[in-house]
Amino acid sequence: MQKLLCNCKIYTMDESNPYGHNLLIEGNKIKAINVDENCIDNKYKKYDLEGKTLLPGFNDSHMHILSYGISLDMVDLRQSESIEEIQERVSKFIEKKDLSEGEWIFGRGWNHEDFIEKRIPDKNDLDSVSEKYPIAITRTCGHIVSVNSKALELCNISSESYIEGGIIYKNEEGQPNGIMAEKAKEFIYQNQRELTIEDVKNYIRLATKKLQKLGLTTVQSDDLAAANIDKQQVMQAFYELSRDKELPVKVNMQLKLKSVEDLLKFINENPVRYYSDFLSLGPLKIIADGSLGARTAAMREPYADSPDEIGGLIFSKRELEELIDCAYRNNMQTALHAIGDKTIEIYLDINEKLQAKYGKKLRNRIIHCQITDYKLIKRIAKLGLMADIQPPFTASDWKMVRDRLGDKRSVNTHAWKTMMDNGINVSGGSDCPVESPAPLKGIRCAVTRLDWDDKPEGGWFPDQKLSVYDAIKMYTINSAYSCFEKDRKGILKEGYEADIVVLDQDPFIIDPKSIDDIEVYTTIVNGNIDL
Amino acid sequence: MQKLLCNCKIYTMDESNPYGHNLLIEGNKIKAINVDENCIDNKYKKYDLEGKTLLPGFNDSHMHILSYGISLDMVDLRQSESIEEIQERVSKFIEKKDLSEGEWIFGRGWNHEDFIEKRIPDKNDLDSVSEKYPIAITRTCGHIVSVNSKALELCNISSESYIEGGIIYKNEEGQPNGIMAEKAKEFIYQNQRELTIEDVKNYIRLATKKLQKLGLTTVQSDDLAAANIDKQQVMQAFYELSRDKELPVKVNMQLKLKSVEDLLKFINENPVRYYSDFLSLGPLKIIADGSLGARTAAMREPYADSPDEIGGLIFSKRELEELIDCAYRNNMQTALHAIGDKTIEIYLDINEKLQAKYGKKLRNRIIHCQITDYKLIKRIAKLGLMADIQPPFTASDWKMVRDRLGDKRSVNTHAWKTMMDNGINVSGGSDCPVESPAPLKGIRCAVTRLDWDDKPEGGWFPDQKLSVYDAIKMYTINSAYSCFEKDRKGILKEGYEADIVVLDQDPFIIDPKSIDDIEVYTTIVNGNIDL
Repeated sequence: MQKLLCNCKIYTMDESNPYGHNLLIEGNKIKAINVDENCIDNKYKKYDLEGKTLLPGFNDSHMHILSYGISLDMVDLRQSESIEEIQERVSKFIEKKDLSEGEWIFGRGWNHEDFIEKRIPDKNDLDSVSEKYPIAITRTCGHIVSVNSKALELCNISSESYIEGGIIYKNEEGQPNGIMAEKAKEFIYQNQRELTIEDVKNYIRLATKKLQKLGLTTVQSDDLAAANIDKQQVMQAFYELSRDKELPVKVNMQLKLKSVEDLLKFINENPVRYYSDFLSLGPLKIIADGSLGARTAAMREPYADSPDEIGGLIFSKRELEELIDCAYRNNMQTALHAIGDKTIEIYLDINEKLQAKYGKKLRNRIIHCQITDYKLIKRIAKLGLMADIQPPFTASDWKMVRDRLGDKRSVNTHAWKTMMDNGINVSGGSDCPVESPAPLKGIRCAVTRLDWDDKPEGGWFPDQKLSVYDAIKMYTINSAYSCFEKDRKGILKEGYEADIVVLDQDPFIIDPKSIDDIEVYTTIVNGNIDL
Repeated sequence: MQKLLCNCKIYTMDESNPYGHNLLIEGNKIKAINVDENCIDNKYKKYDLEGKTLLPGFNDSHMHILSYGISLDMVDLRQSESIEEIQERVSKFIEKKDLSEGEWIFGRGWNHEDFIEKRIPDKNDLDSVSEKYPIAITRTCGHIVSVNSKALELCNISSESYIEGGIIYKNEEGQPNGIMAEKAKEFIYQNQRELTIEDVKNYIRLATKKLQKLGLTTVQSDDLAAANIDKQQVMQAFYELSRDKELPVKVNMQLKLKSVEDLLKFINENPVRYYSDFLSLGPLKIIADGSLGARTAAMREPYADSPDEIGGLIFSKRELEELIDCAYRNNMQTALHAIGDKTIEIYLDINEKLQAKYGKKLRNRIIHCQITDYKLIKRIAKLGLMADIQPPFTASDWKMVRDRLGDKRSVNTHAWKTMMDNGINVSGGSDCPVESPAPLKGIRCAVTRLDWDDKPEGGWFPDQKLSVYDAIKMYTINSAYSCFEKDRKGILKEGYEADIVVLDQDPFIIDPKSIDDIEVYTTIVNGNIDL
């Protein structure tokens, strides 16, 4: 039966037909906008939306569904203001939970820049919470983890331990102090029991239900390497959920594969790219550098607050090129995590070379694309590359960036307005669980460039503020363009998929600071209305 | 001597170097931004700006300096709320002024849409103010004028009077009722004493001083046919003021010429296009239709509130084409006043044909460009034409447009965001004296889409709101681009002309509704600092 949404204010985001007051759905598609009710031939069910606002459903260009599901089962340490607060939150979590012996306590989301103590918690801080259960708490960036002595013991980490690409920090006695960065986190993963496919499915169910409630209809998610389970089993979990129609949002998988062999094997084992309306395979995802917070993002010049550090690439330039070359040969888009300007520059060099070699553009993507300058932005535009950015990073980063980069280079951070003005497709995302997955929070950040305490006054580099229209574009049509779905998603138009978010207030009219207070009344995915 | 502006916050609007904290001027040019004071070789004078905000000087893409000067000597009827208020204001003006017999009283700026009476004032309304002095008051649009009986008498207007392209409205007895539209205004001009060059110079002095105080450094002005004086004498007034360094702002003349003969004669008499830094010759200006208010803008479909009216072109399509063809042959840009979608469509047809014929684009301009739709916008973009728009029109128009066009067509009004998103160069102006010439008022309108009572709530078609950055762009770099001056004006950059506005508050930080409350601290034109 057809469904008519009426008595609503529709911003279609389709320039050729920008406004509507009703919308007819047939099956999983939009049948028409602004219909004359008397002229509908078939039976239809009518939904009176009492003046609410409709937008195209939100599309997150980069996040981690599985990690988010797992994080929902972790201690939430975001917005902690001291190490003491961290300790209290972990203690409470332990009290509440019925733990078996040796069971791990995981937490995430802290940022020592926000602490009174301004230092990273170490094993002593966590030992005072528990010496019995292993504890591992990850920084907001995901690149640094603090653990207690029990965790070090279970993972067999000693002063002798070493891992390529990882750092195990030591105390004055030369013993591991419980702080580890980058690949050193592998020690912890290695010590975990393997998840089962059913575990993974449960985490995905938990996460995607939450995501749908936030207005998301499509999520581009990087999950293969998120947990202690083989990546093909992660795929299997998604395949089964899709087959059983258990995915409430559409998922485009970003495929983190570390070598040419991995990539070819994956393609061989997963030949179907478009599995269903709810599950498709996306780009090759490569983590190329670290974070500014941990000073592991690869920079062209040293960090201002630590002149010996300049960050570093996780792969050599040659390895990167081989991997991306293989993606080109297989007609597969690449999405590269790149925070530092050095990383971005190398990626541009490689794409320039490979575009010439293969005579084609693949809309290759730069995830984060944080530190640029005008020349890099011009090159990105010229090469037809895209930026997958995370608006909430402005709120989290602004205090830290100035320390890390100094005044002169700070101006080149998160220059989204300049990118868009230069024709780069900029798509919005959350990197959830690094940031909240709520698109309305991201839109608020992009429009105001304020943090959650409304600082800095007037916004951070306020000339880079986006209009509400452009901020919504990032989370709708631009994200659809990123994964080649612009002809069926991202605007509300006849023939397009019926992916719609219904809001109780109009984001174009409300004070921008209150955009994240808007309630999502309901989210319609593929024509399914849950009212 | 060099001049250093320091202790200020500079938004250069130059993407390659967006921020500055000081700026060095040498002669009429910007010598450098962000200089190390210790490294300046020459003597320099230092100006401490105490944290004020600097932007590129504002550039109005279309106004009327001479009419503005004259209007400063008229009854200001803007924001009148009734015919009674009109009568009071005119009476007070007469009382104050020492009038000689037969001297005309001119007023302008009323809008009957704002009146309690919702009707246009007629001769009876004005006769009750004075039967002795002739009175002529012009509507805000400039296309309708109301006069009293004395004025009708002096102009010899009777029931028999007729003028091609003009309307003389009649009362029930068939007598002129004092309301006239379009070319009928000529009757009044014909009755005026001719202005002298000195009169014109005085009006220009009066106007340009005011304009500079509002932050304008360049004004693109259409003045040749503004008053009862031969156009070559108007030019002469400008030439003399430029020669004598009496122009406080830079003027680019928009040349309203009504026929091929006029155009060729003008070119012959004024062969130098770049007369000085302060005076240059701009595009051929053509008035092609009227206004929405007066229902004289040429529409593709009839007016919603008067289905017999569809507006009309002032020239035939063939006349228009001949005139524009002549401009093409003389390598001269054309700027066409076009409000209605029919007018715009015809202009596009003509340009399409002439671009094919001459194999070149001349950045031809559409002044107002009010009623479009997505297809027209796409065609404008494809042809490389430009839109010279007036943000304050949203505040003045929003109530009326819905009546004139109905809901369905209203959505196609003032679609500046869509135009900019489609790559059209959109430049900001005031059409002063139709609207206030203050660019900060225009920026406020473009960013909020609110009128001066903050209506309609949340803004008129709020998805068309521009970011502050784009609104400022319209009044700086985009206006410079319109008249081929992008390489020396519109951004603050080494080697560019030192045209700068100094504001006492930061428009990027302030509540957008208060942007027009920002004080212009000073305006620097061609390196001249008046502090």
